Amino acid sequence: MPQPTSIILDWGTSSLRAMLVCEAGETLDTRESSEGGIQFVKDGAFEAALMRTVGEWFSAHVALPVLATGMITSRNGWIEVPYVDAPAGIAELAAGTRKKTLENGAVITFLPGMRNPAAQPFPDVMRGEETQIVGFGLDKDRTLVLPGTHSKWARIASGRIAGFQTYATGEVFALLTKHSFIAKALEPQPGSDTKWSAFDKGAEFAASDAAGADAFLSAIFSARTGILDGKLKPEDILDYVSGLVIGSEFRQARAAGWFQNGDEIGIVGNNILNSRYGRVAPLFALTVEPGPENAAKRGILLIAAEAAKH
Amino acid sequence: MPQPTSIILDWGTSSLRAMLVCEAGETLDTRESSEGGIQFVKDGAFEAALMRTVGEWFSAHVALPVLATGMITSRNGWIEVPYVDAPAGIAELAAGTRKKTLENGAVITFLPGMRNPAAQPFPDVMRGEETQIVGFGLDKDRTLVLPGTHSKWARIASGRIAGFQTYATGEVFALLTKHSFIAKALEPQPGSDTKWSAFDKGAEFAASDAAGADAFLSAIFSARTGILDGKLKPEDILDYVSGLVIGSEFRQARAAGWFQNGDEIGIVGNNILNSRYGRVAPLFALTVEPGPENAAKRGILLIAAEAAKH
Repeated sequence: MPQPTSIILDWGTSSLRAMLVCEAGETLDTRESSEGGIQFVKDGAFEAALMRTVGEWFSAHVALPVLATGMITSRNGWIEVPYVDAPAGIAELAAGTRKKTLENGAVITFLPGMRNPAAQPFPDVMRGEETQIVGFGLDKDRTLVLPGTHSKWARIASGRIAGFQTYATGEVFALLTKHSFIAKALEPQPGSDTKWSAFDKGAEFAASDAAGADAFLSAIFSARTGILDGKLKPEDILDYVSGLVIGSEFRQARAAGWFQNGDEIGIVGNNILNSRYGRVAPLFALTVEPGPENAAKRGILLIAAEAAKH
Repeated sequence: MPQPTSIILDWGTSSLRAMLVCEAGETLDTRESSEGGIQFVKDGAFEAALMRTVGEWFSAHVALPVLATGMITSRNGWIEVPYVDAPAGIAELAAGTRKKTLENGAVITFLPGMRNPAAQPFPDVMRGEETQIVGFGLDKDRTLVLPGTHSKWARIASGRIAGFQTYATGEVFALLTKHSFIAKALEPQPGSDTKWSAFDKGAEFAASDAAGADAFLSAIFSARTGILDGKLKPEDILDYVSGLVIGSEFRQARAAGWFQNGDEIGIVGNNILNSRYGRVAPLFALTVEPGPENAAKRGILLIAAEAAKH
C-alpha cells in the first residue's frame, strides 16, 4: 500500500467525512461519521469528534497533516475562516488558510471559502466549490458550471477564479416537485428510468426563441397546462420540470453574461446532475470540455501544497 | 331592501360562496359553506349541496337565476364547461355558458373559463379571472395584471381579451418563504407592518440594469447573501423576497411582451397584493389606471345578461 500523506475532511453540518490519501492523491481509506456532524458536536469538542473518527489513522501512521473543508470553517464550525475575495487563485486561497496544531502534534489546515464582491445585489459566496474549480484547472480562461442544489457559474481568467454566481436551481426544482401545484400533478415512478423526451421538451422550451422562455415564473406553469393540453403525462412531469429549470438556469446564466452561444464550458463534479447539464449545453450551442475525476480532492491538495510552503 | 334578481356562486374545491344580488349589482346577502366545497360533495349531489346553502333564498324569493363560476365548471365539478378560446369578449363568453334547470324551476348558468391557444409551450388557461377582466372593462386597448397565487397578465384589444399568461408568482413566494433556505433565515413577525424599505430593495433590484436581474434563479439567493453581508436583517427577508418576486414578475412580463416602459396598465381585483403591485409598477415606468370595485361580480352580470338574450 502507498504511504498515506494526508487526511482530507469534508466536515459539514450533518456529517464528517474523512479520506486518507497518498501523495499521488489516491484515496487509501475513508470514514464517515454522522455523530461528527457539526450540529451534533457539543461545547466545541471538535478535536474529540475528529479523533473518534480518524484516531486510528494517527495511531497507525505518523501525525499526518489534516486538510479541512466545509461548514467546519464557518461561524458555527471549529474556526471561522474569512472568505477570500475574487479574483483569487491558488496563492490567494492558500494565503487564506488557517492552521491549528492538534494535541498529537498534527497540523490541521482549514481552507477558506470564496466571496465575489462584484456580485449584485450583494456579494455572493461559496464554500467548497472553489476547491473543485481549482482541481478542474485554472490554466485556461473559460466558464465552469458546478451543478447542485445551489449551482455555481464561475469564470476563470488569468489563472484565477475571476467571479462566480449562485443559482438555486436544484432547490427550486425540489420545491416545485415536492410542495407546489406541480407536486400534486406528478406521478413519481420510483426507480424508473429518466424520461429523456420529457426532459428535452422542458429544456428545449427554455432554450427556445419563445417570448415566454424569459419568463421563468410563467414557464413553470406549463407543467400544469401541458397536462391539461394532453401534451404531458403525469409520469413525464418530474423530468419535464428538471429540463425546464436546468434549461432556464443556462438561459439566465447567458443573460447574466457567463457565456455566449458557441463557447466551450466545463461541467465540474461527479454529481448525477452533470449528465443533465451536459445534455442541455448543446441546446445553447455550448461544447463541453471534460475535466479530471475527483476535482475537489485535487484542488484541496493543490491549495494545501501551496499553503505548506509558508 | 331592493329586490334580489340573481344568485352568484363562487364554487370551488374547498368551499361554496354565494351572493344574493340585485339588478344594480348590490350584494344583499351572502352565504359561505365549507361542506359545499366540491371535494366534500359525494356522488354528484351538487344540487342538494346548493339547496342547503341558498335554499332559503329560493323560499323567500322567486326561482332566481343562478350564475356559477369556479371549479364547479371543471372536470371535477357539476358540469364541465369547455374553455372559450382567446380572443374572446362578452359575446363569446356568453355563448360558451351552459345552462341547467333546477328542480325548483330556477335556471343555473355555468360560466366558462378561457384558454389562450397562442401561449407557449402549451395553451394557457384561466377560470374566473376572465370575469374580473370583463368587469374591469374591455372598452380600451391595454394590459391588465391580476395579482394572485397564479397571477395573470392579459391584453385587451378591440373589446376582447386578446391573450393572457399565467405567472406562478404567489406560489413561488410561498414555496421560498415556507420551505427553502430562505425559510430558515427569516424571522416572521406576525402582525407586524410591512417593511416597505426591504420590499423596495428587492423590487428595485428586479427592475435594475444589473446583469443578474434577468437571472431569477440566482436573484433569490440574494436573500441569503444579503444577510451574510449585513445588508438585510432576518426580519426584512419576507418583504424583501416579496419585492424581488413581484418585481421579477414585472420584469419577465416585460420580456414576454406584455408591456413597455411608459405604458398605462390596470391592476385588477381587491387582493391585498394589489398595493404591492401598484408600488412596483412605477419602477417599470408604468402608470396604473384605477378600476371599478367588485370587477368579478360586474363581469359575471355582464356575461350573464348577454347569455340571457339567447
